Amino acid sequence: MAEKSTRKNSRKPAASSRGLNYSITVRIRITKSVGTVAGVRECIAQAGGFTGAIDSGRATKAYSERDVTISLRDEQHAETVLAKLARIEGVQVMASSNSVFLKHRGGKISVVPKLNITSREELSEVYTPGVAQVCMAIHKNPEKAWSLTIKSNMVAVVSDGSRVLSLGDIGPKAALPVMEGKAMLFKRFGDVDAFPITLDTQDTDEIVRTIQIIAPVFGAINLEDIASPRCYDIERRLRETLDIPVFHDDQHATAVVVVAAAINAAKLVGKPLSSLKLVAAGTGAAGLACIKLLNAAGITNIIAYNRKGAVHAGSTELSEPEQWLVQNTNQSGFKGTLKKALAGADMFLGLAASNLLKGKDLKVMNKDAIVFALANPIPEVLPEDAAPYVRVIGTGGSNYPNQINNALVFPGMFRGALRARVPQITEDMKMAAAVALAAVVTDDELHEDLVIPSVLDPRVAKAIAQAVVKVAVDKGLARRVPSPDEI
Amino acid sequence: MAEKSTRKNSRKPAASSRGLNYSITVRIRITKSVGTVAGVRECIAQAGGFTGAIDSGRATKAYSERDVTISLRDEQHAETVLAKLARIEGVQVMASSNSVFLKHRGGKISVVPKLNITSREELSEVYTPGVAQVCMAIHKNPEKAWSLTIKSNMVAVVSDGSRVLSLGDIGPKAALPVMEGKAMLFKRFGDVDAFPITLDTQDTDEIVRTIQIIAPVFGAINLEDIASPRCYDIERRLRETLDIPVFHDDQHATAVVVVAAAINAAKLVGKPLSSLKLVAAGTGAAGLACIKLLNAAGITNIIAYNRKGAVHAGSTELSEPEQWLVQNTNQSGFKGTLKKALAGADMFLGLAASNLLKGKDLKVMNKDAIVFALANPIPEVLPEDAAPYVRVIGTGGSNYPNQINNALVFPGMFRGALRARVPQITEDMKMAAAVALAAVVTDDELHEDLVIPSVLDPRVAKAIAQAVVKVAVDKGLARRVPSPDEI
Repeated sequence: MAEKSTRKNSRKPAASSRGLNYSITVRIRITKSVGTVAGVRECIAQAGGFTGAIDSGRATKAYSERDVTISLRDEQHAETVLAKLARIEGVQVMASSNSVFLKHRGGKISVVPKLNITSREELSEVYTPGVAQVCMAIHKNPEKAWSLTIKSNMVAVVSDGSRVLSLGDIGPKAALPVMEGKAMLFKRFGDVDAFPITLDTQDTDEIVRTIQIIAPVFGAINLEDIASPRCYDIERRLRETLDIPVFHDDQHATAVVVVAAAINAAKLVGKPLSSLKLVAAGTGAAGLACIKLLNAAGITNIIAYNRKGAVHAGSTELSEPEQWLVQNTNQSGFKGTLKKALAGADMFLGLAASNLLKGKDLKVMNKDAIVFALANPIPEVLPEDAAPYVRVIGTGGSNYPNQINNALVFPGMFRGALRARVPQITEDMKMAAAVALAAVVTDDELHEDLVIPSVLDPRVAKAIAQAVVKVAVDKGLARRVPSPDEI
Repeated sequence: MAEKSTRKNSRKPAASSRGLNYSITVRIRITKSVGTVAGVRECIAQAGGFTGAIDSGRATKAYSERDVTISLRDEQHAETVLAKLARIEGVQVMASSNSVFLKHRGGKISVVPKLNITSREELSEVYTPGVAQVCMAIHKNPEKAWSLTIKSNMVAVVSDGSRVLSLGDIGPKAALPVMEGKAMLFKRFGDVDAFPITLDTQDTDEIVRTIQIIAPVFGAINLEDIASPRCYDIERRLRETLDIPVFHDDQHATAVVVVAAAINAAKLVGKPLSSLKLVAAGTGAAGLACIKLLNAAGITNIIAYNRKGAVHAGSTELSEPEQWLVQNTNQSGFKGTLKKALAGADMFLGLAASNLLKGKDLKVMNKDAIVFALANPIPEVLPEDAAPYVRVIGTGGSNYPNQINNALVFPGMFRGALRARVPQITEDMKMAAAVALAAVVTDDELHEDLVIPSVLDPRVAKAIAQAVVKVAVDKGLARRVPSPDEI
């Protein structure tokens, strides 16, 4: 019981000791110099905020400006404090920005030369006329583009902005910050270069053709946040026509993390994967990819739910991809509700909708139940409500343990694929990645709150990349065999 | 005479005192450890080469590897030395690479995060869930993409590989090193981010549509090395449909440098631009753009030559863009040869073919003649041959003074355009850029060998950017007025 209680506490969102988790930076213009900054500090403290860094900005004879970082409780608290600041004599509030927006000013990535240019000689080697030698070498043997250009380590992160996070169809400009964020993570965790391409079209033919046309620059394509069913068609057609990997991250990376978490959770509770009864809610692109990979990992007793109920042989209005479920799941033809299906289930997987279940709905599951509730930002069932009834809980959020985050997968997956120059990422590679990701958690570390490593764990990307390269080499798909220290 | 002779010498290609300008790095595997490295050094010295850095590589019990950098005369010299090295007992030559190829290994640019990610909190600000706030802010007001994404400082360098340098139609993979080189220069000289996009199509409609579709990510489009007449159509259609600048560098940047050089050369020789008789060879995209901008700068007495001879009112088989020449040049209807047209000319501009003229062909030009011979890599007339007959000579190469290099223009031109968020780059902006570029050369510096600044001159990009921003603001085209320290 002591342990259970500890777990329960650790599932609460982390908070600083003051509870001041909302940070803003305010630009104030000070027209009365004596004592004004002290007055600003005092005002913030009296209002319950905390004054952090104060940076000097523009200064004229008439005024000086300061950028003041303030820790506050939330947006409403910020509004209150800003209003109080504006009433201080000699202070004008010019602008304010929270730290998320500040981190996005001017975008989050930059394109930098790998070499400095300090002389005309160096310039004439990396640009005209010297570069012509390299162009002609590639022209004679196009394979050399892999060694003499950015192609060997460059991923395109491509979205049409049609299904961005949980925000829906917000278009190519609004989707760009997510793709930039992915490019950051590619570099940070996999040392892979990635560039965001958001498309001003949602036409399948145009998306396919555009990606084919820009493909020469890239060693792999990461499709991202594209609505279903368009995403299936785009991925299939590109896989058929391009000689580089095309990987729809929302489907496959999520599936790899879920399988890795399932492997470790099953190990922890001492049940073989093949013995588990799985109930899955959500048969969209990510949901189906997870169910398929869990099935490949050995789980055969599966009941999947879409918005109309349990998918079974007599289900109508199924999408073409959902037909797979009819062939491969729910052999007993169960037609009851989701809550009834949970009776005797060992694992619940949600990629459906927030607050689909109450904690006590899980009471009917088998002992040592495993729940992955991945709806974002609010899961299908809140971990604190589920805790009394289940043994392992994972969510999509960073504010609980066991975050099922596809950032665990894509840096290593693409790193391995690029290092071995594979023409595609296969089912074998995904499964090997899942096994490798699970194995990063050692037996000593394995715990109800640690069935999946932290996204910041430096072992993750290398482990996945090595697993992908091994499959590529074993299956004859590696167009290049990297030395161990390159992986 | 003393000065003339000095100039003549300085026009010879720079060479190290030893004449060893061709550098290679050789990976050798040494299987006999005692004295072998000394033997390698001796062999290189005896063959007339110079041994530079020796780096240690892989080592096993059976062998050790070294990367030896060797300075040599040329490619043939390198082959001789490599053969001699291979005959040394205990030495195997594993690979060799010259410094140009070494600089291209793995490509020349990298995509890096602007911020480090060290905690889950930071991760949740730049990626999910925090990034969603930024997405929604842009979704509500798409103009915010300019401040909250990479768009405000990101240029697409786009080519279909159909006319790369003087190499012709070498395709998108072989063109990539040039575009990467441009991206390096954008950052190095303008602090502008640029990303290379080489297209696997040469169809005008597909090129136009692809660029429209990927445009949301970019603040400007730099078209590059696209064959004429396709390049005109692509640029025109994109300018009509996109709200960001579209600039075919080969045409317009070259024209800006030529006009800047002409302004300074005319100043040096004490003739007003409007008084010059210009003979121009080459009416391709770059040639026409130069002639048009020189005309806008005040030169009205112009005879232009295409492959069939002087363009005049009775010329047949003119391209549509060449029609401009009929309306605006050769008012006297001159039909003679190029050599005859040079009689009494003040300026020759070549953007045509190597070795078109002999030095003595220029004898008939007016006193203090100006010659810009820009064919690459070998100019229309060699500067050393032209020197006795003319006062100012410029070429496209870095191995002579007065290099007419479009790298002088694009970093500053795009920097200014991006800082002011202009929807297009206008004729006024190009002319202002030319005037600003010319003015970087002070009266003290102005000299036969310095009518145009060095591409490494740190004053250049800022001067051009300031000029572009000023025109943008004056003409009401600035969608944002940058503060002086941002330009």
